[in-house]
Amino acid sequence: MLVLILNAGSSSLKFQLMNHATHDVFASGVAERIGIDGKLVIESRTKTKREVNLPTHKEAIEVVLKSLVKGEHKVIDSVEKDIDAIGHRVVHGGEYFSKSVIVDEDVISKLENLIPLAPLHNPAHIMGIKICRELMPGKPNVAVFDTAFHQTMSPSTYMYAVPYEDYKEFGVRKYGFHGTSHHFVSKEACKLLKDDNAKVIVCHLGNGSSICAVKDGKSIDTSMGLTPLEGLVMGTRSGDLDPAVISYLMEKKKMNAQDIIDYLNKKSGLLGVSGISSDLREIIQASEKGDERATLAIDLKSNRIKKYICSYAGVLGGIDAICFTAGVGENASIIREKVCANLEFMGIEIDKDKNDAKQSGTREVSSDKSKVKVFVIPTNEEFVIANDTYNLVKDL
Amino acid sequence: MLVLILNAGSSSLKFQLMNHATHDVFASGVAERIGIDGKLVIESRTKTKREVNLPTHKEAIEVVLKSLVKGEHKVIDSVEKDIDAIGHRVVHGGEYFSKSVIVDEDVISKLENLIPLAPLHNPAHIMGIKICRELMPGKPNVAVFDTAFHQTMSPSTYMYAVPYEDYKEFGVRKYGFHGTSHHFVSKEACKLLKDDNAKVIVCHLGNGSSICAVKDGKSIDTSMGLTPLEGLVMGTRSGDLDPAVISYLMEKKKMNAQDIIDYLNKKSGLLGVSGISSDLREIIQASEKGDERATLAIDLKSNRIKKYICSYAGVLGGIDAICFTAGVGENASIIREKVCANLEFMGIEIDKDKNDAKQSGTREVSSDKSKVKVFVIPTNEEFVIANDTYNLVKDL
Repeated sequence: MLVLILNAGSSSLKFQLMNHATHDVFASGVAERIGIDGKLVIESRTKTKREVNLPTHKEAIEVVLKSLVKGEHKVIDSVEKDIDAIGHRVVHGGEYFSKSVIVDEDVISKLENLIPLAPLHNPAHIMGIKICRELMPGKPNVAVFDTAFHQTMSPSTYMYAVPYEDYKEFGVRKYGFHGTSHHFVSKEACKLLKDDNAKVIVCHLGNGSSICAVKDGKSIDTSMGLTPLEGLVMGTRSGDLDPAVISYLMEKKKMNAQDIIDYLNKKSGLLGVSGISSDLREIIQASEKGDERATLAIDLKSNRIKKYICSYAGVLGGIDAICFTAGVGENASIIREKVCANLEFMGIEIDKDKNDAKQSGTREVSSDKSKVKVFVIPTNEEFVIANDTYNLVKDL
Repeated sequence: MLVLILNAGSSSLKFQLMNHATHDVFASGVAERIGIDGKLVIESRTKTKREVNLPTHKEAIEVVLKSLVKGEHKVIDSVEKDIDAIGHRVVHGGEYFSKSVIVDEDVISKLENLIPLAPLHNPAHIMGIKICRELMPGKPNVAVFDTAFHQTMSPSTYMYAVPYEDYKEFGVRKYGFHGTSHHFVSKEACKLLKDDNAKVIVCHLGNGSSICAVKDGKSIDTSMGLTPLEGLVMGTRSGDLDPAVISYLMEKKKMNAQDIIDYLNKKSGLLGVSGISSDLREIIQASEKGDERATLAIDLKSNRIKKYICSYAGVLGGIDAICFTAGVGENASIIREKVCANLEFMGIEIDKDKNDAKQSGTREVSSDKSKVKVFVIPTNEEFVIANDTYNLVKDL
């Protein structure tokens, strides 16, 4: 089945056209700064790259669809005949959705209810869905949620210690994100371990980063919370801090509630600590040249990951594997090394040579005597979206 | 040496008159609601209790001093001759103080500089010190800081991932509190283990609660941060949550920065979740009668403690002992049991009978085969203050 995978952001649009069974990507691309000086970069099996200007999301999707059937990027004959379904990445499914669903009016109305919890993301997703329904009438749209995998968490994990009424009235609780990635990677780990009930910790370390504790194929705990701000030190996000830092800095720096959230989401994290970049590669380079704040940023990030891994090992009552995935997780051997250092007491030991080897693809980087396996497993969120979409629409 | 130990709060005053060597308490008491409808409850070796009304801190201290030398609570002949020094508990020593100090003008000026970081506590401490200097001229005053013990934390532990400039300019970092308690209890644990370099985790669980990782007698990490709001679920404090919860609730509930901090400090925690009480004993009773929110509050609190213990085990590279102290830590066997459950993989195992035994005093509650010792060790912050005061003033 050919699935068009869409990830519509407030001013961006990512897409892939994928065969759900072979994972063959016919075409992919990203439109950025839509409505500003929007530009689409598209890549297909026929042609590597092309740039198009676009003013709105609707035009972006129209251009994508036209490109797929005509011109230098043509990969299919007809949108109507060849695209079987559209799979939408949706950030926030709240407590409504514990798995992917076919979109109908009820789903759209629930996504609208969730806008206060994801004010930047859900409106864009809804717009993306509506445009697809208009441009490709009759084709099934499937919503795949970042939050759904984590709906298995227990209340003693997902509740914050704030007045219970505010959970009931405003939905204040931990939701967790990156669910498709944690689901995919933990499943891959279970295959490698030949144990569907393995206790696995997945470290999804990209520009946004989160950790997930998985047991029996279910999310038991995760580091992101009500929003993707909580948890690890990320590219530009602070992750955890004393909640009182917020009111303290609001007063000291004369910031309002929106200012401080922007500050914590966009100016903090690796960027804020290092003063250099949100990109870990640049920070590692600076650290190697002796920059102390760059080294501090690396240590802060590693230390936080180590603490989460160990706390989740406690929650799981011991672990079988730790998995590193996404840009930083798959490539930054120094982070994996620092995170796993000094954890022999828990049966975790990295093999330095295996860890440092410049390899790609799924691999084991723990030593032979490490009781806990340490894996690097490339994530593939698009595959999960294509697969979920296939499974929901195949019998329609 | 006889030391008068003072803990001056914004509308309260606690005191003890203690022999630093024998730990013999000559008299102790607490004044509350000073300036409102203030009342002092005093207890001495000669008489159990007495109540006096008082309008100001100065009068409170005057009444205390007079009571010690005259009337039914008389325990010494003369303030001037018999009291050797005054030891003040001070909440915030910032980065200035890594140990206790004799108070001079410079110390007072630094305490004044720190008022923005401890707006409720430090002004009261300064007032207490100034009153003592006025009423007992010439006697040495010693400041013992809640934060000092944690000044051994490394930057990769105490820094938050916010712009570095705000650490430099506004002192935004983790300081940690309950230092005198963590110091005392970890030292007691080292004595029991006959190992000064033991790796120990101290769980100070009272109405305020924090955890500390100690190695070689030094604080390596602790759960409270810039303020005592961060970390565990406490009586009325939320502890950790997604920083974005703050801006979300400010908008939803039309709260300003001060409102939300009050909400997180005074209406959250066990009280907010259970809706019953901030007192764990009442919550345990309600849970035993089947109240679901009470059970949730207990599980939330236990789960958070477990996660911190395991993350600190990771930071320390394994542990020799876990210590429980303060009201909840010393008395709530159900919390100790839940916290330590399912941690056999780390060599931690509670002995249910020992743990449930209605005992007081220092005791071991781990099983014989537990590699990690689990201790209950009553804390004694006043002893640390008396001892530090003695050590600083003995050679004056």
